[in-house]
Amino acid sequence: MASNTFGYLFTITTFGESHGKGIGVIIDGCPAGVEIDNAFIRSELQRRKPGQSSIVTQRKEEDEFIIQSGVFEDKSTGHPIAIWIPNTNQKSRDYDHIKYQFRPSHADFSYEKKYGIRDYRGGGRSSARETAARVAGGAVAKLMLKSYGIKINAFVSEVGNLKLDKSYLQLDLSKTESNIVRCPDPEMALQMEQHIKEIRKEGDTVGGVITAVIQDCPVGIGEPVYRKLHAELARAMLSINAVKGFEYGSGFAGSRMKGSEHNDAILTAEGKTASNFSGGIQGGISNGMDIYFRVAFKPVATIMKDQVSRDKHGAAVTVSGKGRHDPCVVPRAVPIVEAMAALVLADLLLVSKGSRLDA
Amino acid sequence: MASNTFGYLFTITTFGESHGKGIGVIIDGCPAGVEIDNAFIRSELQRRKPGQSSIVTQRKEEDEFIIQSGVFEDKSTGHPIAIWIPNTNQKSRDYDHIKYQFRPSHADFSYEKKYGIRDYRGGGRSSARETAARVAGGAVAKLMLKSYGIKINAFVSEVGNLKLDKSYLQLDLSKTESNIVRCPDPEMALQMEQHIKEIRKEGDTVGGVITAVIQDCPVGIGEPVYRKLHAELARAMLSINAVKGFEYGSGFAGSRMKGSEHNDAILTAEGKTASNFSGGIQGGISNGMDIYFRVAFKPVATIMKDQVSRDKHGAAVTVSGKGRHDPCVVPRAVPIVEAMAALVLADLLLVSKGSRLDA
Amino acid sequence: MASNTFGYLFTITTFGESHGKGIGVIIDGCPAGVEIDNAFIRSELQRRKPGQSSIVTQRKEEDEFIIQSGVFEDKSTGHPIAIWIPNTNQKSRDYDHIKYQFRPSHADFSYEKKYGIRDYRGGGRSSARETAARVAGGAVAKLMLKSYGIKINAFVSEVGNLKLDKSYLQLDLSKTESNIVRCPDPEMALQMEQHIKEIRKEGDTVGGVITAVIQDCPVGIGEPVYRKLHAELARAMLSINAVKGFEYGSGFAGSRMKGSEHNDAILTAEGKTASNFSGGIQGGISNGMDIYFRVAFKPVATIMKDQVSRDKHGAAVTVSGKGRHDPCVVPRAVPIVEAMAALVLADLLLVSKGSRLDA
Amino acid sequence: MASNTFGYLFTITTFGESHGKGIGVIIDGCPAGVEIDNAFIRSELQRRKPGQSSIVTQRKEEDEFIIQSGVFEDKSTGHPIAIWIPNTNQKSRDYDHIKYQFRPSHADFSYEKKYGIRDYRGGGRSSARETAARVAGGAVAKLMLKSYGIKINAFVSEVGNLKLDKSYLQLDLSKTESNIVRCPDPEMALQMEQHIKEIRKEGDTVGGVITAVIQDCPVGIGEPVYRKLHAELARAMLSINAVKGFEYGSGFAGSRMKGSEHNDAILTAEGKTASNFSGGIQGGISNGMDIYFRVAFKPVATIMKDQVSRDKHGAAVTVSGKGRHDPCVVPRAVPIVEAMAALVLADLLLVSKGSRLDA
Repeated sequence: MASNTFGYLFTITTFGESHGKGIGVIIDGCPAGVEIDNAFIRSELQRRKPGQSSIVTQRKEEDEFIIQSGVFEDKSTGHPIAIWIPNTNQKSRDYDHIKYQFRPSHADFSYEKKYGIRDYRGGGRSSARETAARVAGGAVAKLMLKSYGIKINAFVSEVGNLKLDKSYLQLDLSKTESNIVRCPDPEMALQMEQHIKEIRKEGDTVGGVITAVIQDCPVGIGEPVYRKLHAELARAMLSINAVKGFEYGSGFAGSRMKGSEHNDAILTAEGKTASNFSGGIQGGISNGMDIYFRVAFKPVATIMKDQVSRDKHGAAVTVSGKGRHDPCVVPRAVPIVEAMAALVLADLLLVSKGSRLDA
Repeated sequence: MASNTFGYLFTITTFGESHGKGIGVIIDGCPAGVEIDNAFIRSELQRRKPGQSSIVTQRKEEDEFIIQSGVFEDKSTGHPIAIWIPNTNQKSRDYDHIKYQFRPSHADFSYEKKYGIRDYRGGGRSSARETAARVAGGAVAKLMLKSYGIKINAFVSEVGNLKLDKSYLQLDLSKTESNIVRCPDPEMALQMEQHIKEIRKEGDTVGGVITAVIQDCPVGIGEPVYRKLHAELARAMLSINAVKGFEYGSGFAGSRMKGSEHNDAILTAEGKTASNFSGGIQGGISNGMDIYFRVAFKPVATIMKDQVSRDKHGAAVTVSGKGRHDPCVVPRAVPIVEAMAALVLADLLLVSKGSRLDA
Repeated sequence: MASNTFGYLFTITTFGESHGKGIGVIIDGCPAGVEIDNAFIRSELQRRKPGQSSIVTQRKEEDEFIIQSGVFEDKSTGHPIAIWIPNTNQKSRDYDHIKYQFRPSHADFSYEKKYGIRDYRGGGRSSARETAARVAGGAVAKLMLKSYGIKINAFVSEVGNLKLDKSYLQLDLSKTESNIVRCPDPEMALQMEQHIKEIRKEGDTVGGVITAVIQDCPVGIGEPVYRKLHAELARAMLSINAVKGFEYGSGFAGSRMKGSEHNDAILTAEGKTASNFSGGIQGGISNGMDIYFRVAFKPVATIMKDQVSRDKHGAAVTVSGKGRHDPCVVPRAVPIVEAMAALVLADLLLVSKGSRLDA
Repeated sequence: MASNTFGYLFTITTFGESHGKGIGVIIDGCPAGVEIDNAFIRSELQRRKPGQSSIVTQRKEEDEFIIQSGVFEDKSTGHPIAIWIPNTNQKSRDYDHIKYQFRPSHADFSYEKKYGIRDYRGGGRSSARETAARVAGGAVAKLMLKSYGIKINAFVSEVGNLKLDKSYLQLDLSKTESNIVRCPDPEMALQMEQHIKEIRKEGDTVGGVITAVIQDCPVGIGEPVYRKLHAELARAMLSINAVKGFEYGSGFAGSRMKGSEHNDAILTAEGKTASNFSGGIQGGISNGMDIYFRVAFKPVATIMKDQVSRDKHGAAVTVSGKGRHDPCVVPRAVPIVEAMAALVLADLLLVSKGSRLDA
């Protein structure tokens, strides 16, 4: 399979550029009979949409979508579901000044060298606009997972140096959507909002961390060795623009623990454990406990400051900040993290149907 | 493809259990004409081998290997290279006591539930013994990458709370193999060695972190969107037993930086940058700068202490530590990290040959 | 990968139903720098279009297409090329009478049983309308192959009992498009046309055979064992609606020959052979000689006669012929056969770039 | 995946050369819990073995096999099953005379040009010896399919000009193994045997045709569009050495029929049809009726006669026949055809588990 497809059985193939006609996703492998709830797909896209609040880019994108195939009488038919999201508010001229310039820490240089040709407008295919297609695909995956009772919740746990030092168990995750930062702790959310606004005033950007929790996942999802559930989650997360790191369960902190502290004593026949440093996965396979992981995002590369760079002819240039960009990507990235997690789970859940003869 | 295959064009398929007849790897997609240097493959396996030093498991495995196919007159033929590593020193009786027990933080419970049948001896397929097959496959990948001048070096940068607070640029990586911890800083190596020995005395284990550096990688390796170079590296690393986290370039620390600090100013026509927080990858594609990343390992789950658990009938049991195990996995995991990195690079390098018509 | 994707590196993913909003194709893996000639894509679609002549269905489909992504300044960018072909002339009501009926020798019954839900309008996803998306994808593949000088020509060699008993070497393939049957022998074309018209008058349909020739294919395309060039061609052809058989080189007739007759004596250092019963492929790999094969199509299942069948409740029904259908599918299938051959070649050509280290 | 792997979920990866250490197969994706019956695997290998009768090659190969992994207490564990078949009776010197020669209608020339290096001994990887690994893999697939009640039977229906003009329905398929030709019609079997012996006396070879029948296949196996059941069968068959053609159901003869003759009237709610020209597959999906197909094999290329060719330096040479080869490949190919059919079915059966939400 080529590189714009994700998944083995439940797959998405995405396409489209930031400033072309639009972007789209083909969901292939969704079982027949899933209720395709348009309102839900719309609400997921709204969560990712630019212009939704005062701390995200003021670019207006309507993200209206059209389901072009694969749904009949509101149900999936087992055939590819195509969702098309037309571009509506592209200001391609905003990018004329970087037609020949390589913006620092963008994909301009590497795309130009790899392909010898580059749609420079808004970053083309490297634009985070592509993630809208993931969210649409992930929404369908969530609709399928609903039948299995699997719940996926992500939230912002760090913005710059502001860190929410609470476990997800201490938080009311239903509050995540109650503020524009998408941090379920109202007090911390306020601080983060304040911080993002200051950063924006400086013409600068800041990174952050998203925590995700998957609950009520059946035992047995994930394949041993190369397709471990957490390995697929890692790839899924690192494939999101601006992501620099992934850890699950005890993560990097776990590397500083002793085995006697880290091991999760098994308390019940159903596999309930006393602690859950394993993060709900053992040997790459879900064990029925909560799955949780953290995803690190770098600061957005587009800043409103002059920067040293080169153009495609090798000449030194000054890249100036223009356009409408996010001061911090994590509030809008919450639904993207959830979407990618849903896609991994839907896919590996189908794969696991072949695990045993008597299943 | 099924789950024991890794890669798209340059692939490995591994098989075998800890206490069966042996383990093996099929390397399919290696171009014809690569010099297959048996001495090099052997030396790579030696670096991973148990019993190699006083701080690793004293289990003896000879890891002698047989190349069964795909090599003719010392060169790869373009056909599958099969490498078979017989098991020689299995003491299956060591595992009789866990025949029905689920060891905490092992894959026993999840395997039993997923498959309904389980080769309990030494963990079967979930054993880290499988990684010998990866190292053999990675050795062939390294032999191919040599023709492209690509260098891969990993080393131990953390053991428990001991952290080597130096960039790889400040270290002499040629010293990594000069001590049994595989830390290129001799002083820190000594402390780490000491610490591991103490931990072992306690009957306990400890985690750690491995840093890896890829140098002289050509520009243009990695595919946008779902097959980003760092996403594939993340998956590769998380697929290694005991790994809990991955970060590249600035990583989690990058999420606390501002864009103006984090962006890498481009200084030359060849894309040399002032800083390298991007970690040698932009938009998922290598940009010619050093690629570096960190991999977190949890403490080994087998400890010499009694633990609370359940057996396959659901009854409460005490799991007692037995067998010969590593107090800390990272010294032996260094060649595994390198092998997986080599496999990702060899694979994506072949994939990238199709990037442009004029290539 | 899921089942609506074809190819390994140069891939198409198609979607859409006969009587939905339209059909589309995502071409992923096309190298950057291919000239995307819209007029050529249009002319290929015209060759497949309904209503193009007096011997094909009089259904009107405009097959206007929109390139939605992946092309910049008339060249492929290395990113997915999406082509969307809206449906314009669907008369869904024509299908109301088969809402619950299973048409004999259609996919109605097997779809219903497999999925439990079925878009009955025009056959939904099982409609041959899907092949328009293949032709669009194949047109892009042909544009890529042009750079390599590879030529692909298909033509009608049999209609019912009318058989063109000449080798492609005795024919002027440039005449294929000069008649509505797409048979390069004008006299035979006339007979075939006459026959098809008679069959239509009877309210019946008839099958046929298409012969295809690939010329100037470089040596070395195709992979041994499971991805032999002819095995991939066979799969590609059998994936086309209504295809019942495939043979290449000497084919079924070759099974009646002796080795001493069948073997192709090698005459030159470049591999030119005296005969070419091998059909340009040895061991699954192109050898530089002409590649040729034949594809058998069954008679179209929709006929204007009453037929015995069952409905979805198991009751006996009479299925009556309605709608506008082809009396013989082969004239319109010529560009589809070419498209699938082009897709196989473009794909395996990219795969073969990894065959040897010095390539 | 690389090219020596076959299948999507139930996969085989084969390796090894004719005159190397042996050949092997890794079966990955077999569900846990399948009884692995060694005696059955052995009997399948015996059916393919050289030297089994007076009309096949007198080369002796023991085809003893070792199961190296994936089986525990006689059951599949869900992990890769490796089967290794050592080479025992290689006479590599037999091939010294073709070290530099290209044998007509063998893969020598195309391998040399593709890879620049070639294991000339016995054809190396291009040898039909590879098919023993397929038969071993297919035996495991058959053991899995037994649980589903699916039956697969192949037999010889043509040798040279001798054609068994009976439908499989008129034959007692249990008689196939009662003669050395593997033709269930005893009279025709005798004629075929006679013919093969004459051909061998001439130092020549002859082709033939194998017919295969799959019975009691559940409805719903096969995926629409590119992974149609018959398309996968076609690829599987064409991937077997010496195969030149494939047809299913009415096949090439179907192209000469009218729709009114060809359509299969549906007689019962379960989908039983009056005729079965569809060959048990509609729209690429099994419909519950018998699946049947025919596979054409060319005459073996190794003949005991002098032939005109070139060597690797481009010089004209005479290739003389030596070694021990089959005068006709079809008797030994019967279990290979069955094995590949079993692999396709086992694979697509697992894939189809994801077809609908309520399955």
